Amino acid sequence: MNIGMIEAAADRLKGVALRTPLLSSPFLDEIAGRRIFVKAECLQHTGSFKFRGGWSAVSALSMEDRARGVIAFSSGNHAQGVALAARRHGAPCVILMPADAPRVKIDNTRALGAEVVLYDRATGDRDAIGAALAEDRGLTLIKPFDEPQVIAGQGTTGLEIAEQAAAEDVTKADVLICCGGGGLTSGIALALEANAPGLRARPVEPEGFDDVKRSLASGAIERNTRTSGSLCDAIVTPSPGQITFPIMARLCGPGIAVTEEEALAAMTQAFNRLHIVLEPGGAVALAAALYHPSAVEGDVVIAVASGGNVDPDVFRMALDRYA
Amino acid sequence: MNIGMIEAAADRLKGVALRTPLLSSPFLDEIAGRRIFVKAECLQHTGSFKFRGGWSAVSALSMEDRARGVIAFSSGNHAQGVALAARRHGAPCVILMPADAPRVKIDNTRALGAEVVLYDRATGDRDAIGAALAEDRGLTLIKPFDEPQVIAGQGTTGLEIAEQAAAEDVTKADVLICCGGGGLTSGIALALEANAPGLRARPVEPEGFDDVKRSLASGAIERNTRTSGSLCDAIVTPSPGQITFPIMARLCGPGIAVTEEEALAAMTQAFNRLHIVLEPGGAVALAAALYHPSAVEGDVVIAVASGGNVDPDVFRMALDRYA
Repeated sequence: MNIGMIEAAADRLKGVALRTPLLSSPFLDEIAGRRIFVKAECLQHTGSFKFRGGWSAVSALSMEDRARGVIAFSSGNHAQGVALAARRHGAPCVILMPADAPRVKIDNTRALGAEVVLYDRATGDRDAIGAALAEDRGLTLIKPFDEPQVIAGQGTTGLEIAEQAAAEDVTKADVLICCGGGGLTSGIALALEANAPGLRARPVEPEGFDDVKRSLASGAIERNTRTSGSLCDAIVTPSPGQITFPIMARLCGPGIAVTEEEALAAMTQAFNRLHIVLEPGGAVALAAALYHPSAVEGDVVIAVASGGNVDPDVFRMALDRYA
Repeated sequence: MNIGMIEAAADRLKGVALRTPLLSSPFLDEIAGRRIFVKAECLQHTGSFKFRGGWSAVSALSMEDRARGVIAFSSGNHAQGVALAARRHGAPCVILMPADAPRVKIDNTRALGAEVVLYDRATGDRDAIGAALAEDRGLTLIKPFDEPQVIAGQGTTGLEIAEQAAAEDVTKADVLICCGGGGLTSGIALALEANAPGLRARPVEPEGFDDVKRSLASGAIERNTRTSGSLCDAIVTPSPGQITFPIMARLCGPGIAVTEEEALAAMTQAFNRLHIVLEPGGAVALAAALYHPSAVEGDVVIAVASGGNVDPDVFRMALDRYA
């Protein structure tokens, strides 16, 4: 896993992925007490950064492997990213998805041409189920984060952040990243190491699901006691990956944990001030920038808004409480 | 008023205005029956394209005029655009605003450092009030649309559309534009004439406030019978301008009118599929693309999403009805 793979993924994603804008608002600067920039990956195709990793992985396959097809398992955003990437490559696609995933994500994945197979998140072992399906049909498994070509795709976000920060004359800042298994965080960390060494990647997670924060603190992979029951479902994973963790341990600053209420409040600020739609899991980095200013260093902070696939009821709840 | 003024405005806006992305979604393509691209000006600074015209006008003033200050009148978006542009230039700014404008727009304009003066939209003549204030304090009046430097600034949106369409290999399409007095529409029309002659600008308005559509049909400036009472307040104006109308009459295709309900439904689609926040007046072009497909020509349509400054209650109403 190295910067060359990220640069190669950027070449394959050129003209395909959206170069998402770096947004800002004087109103948010005032709340945070420093300048904030928000990398709006909620505007990416399929509504999250996951399209980058999906496209990177599918486009890296041999013609033969693509023709047999791919399988992915995901709480939804990775599913949509892989499904659209597969469809545009003409590759068959099976998505293994927890039965309690938001309805909109299941519907959207099916509408993108994928075959959706549901499993019970509490009792099923998705790794085992996915491996069996892949074996059975000759599909290539595209893991959601602990997979070099996926990390390379997510890392292209970091290449863009490095360029966009330089255009704003920002050479030193914490870059806060919504973090599940660490694919986006480790990819961005590698890209920043190579192209913007004054920018430091820092994972942000929901309280109670802060396996990466605890792992970085202890120096060893820690697990969450629960893996469901969070509004931030998109970024809830059991533990950081075997590939992602060493990268994060080497390059990232300390993790930050935010409450669900802070994520909902950040969604409302993003609605009012940036005019973007965030899901709770995609708003935790912005929440850390706005509501945990003392955890951040420097005059500028960059928050990655990683996804916008939110159920309307959850969005209404955010507006009801904080608008 | 010519393309040279738009190019000069683009130079002054370089590194200042956001180059807003051209968004798309296969889900929206399906509804419209053709490819749709959405120019997301709701992501522009202050939440609408109006920042472009405000900056263009303030930056075109002499040092002396800037030091005396500017005045603008607006239902809100022009106000915010001018206020932020003035503040960043260190120029005093007075905003004359209807007393029934959305609260969030009044608050935001004040927070951007402007002095807000309220008037009654039904009984007051904003042109006369604005002229008197300008005379009294030596301020330069920045009209919301019938002003060459404002049109030049809005026209930079069209320069970007021309480039972004070319990058998508789109050489022929209707470009639907949310239209009030025609500043954005005429500016984009001039930019497309020069840089993308296969793209045709077309104004979109709310039913009952379709003065531009009727003016284009009759060949003379027509007026609305009402100038308040629309959810699409941001784009309700009495009539097209003396400068904007001849440009639109020469360059634009026929106007399209949509219902308020169609605008609310389009806001919900933008929420679900593009993850952007639109106000009703900023959603009418998307509504035309989605719900009036037979009024549009060609395989591709480009809709300008012009603003996102929406009261949370109005947004909730859209979600309640259409999500």
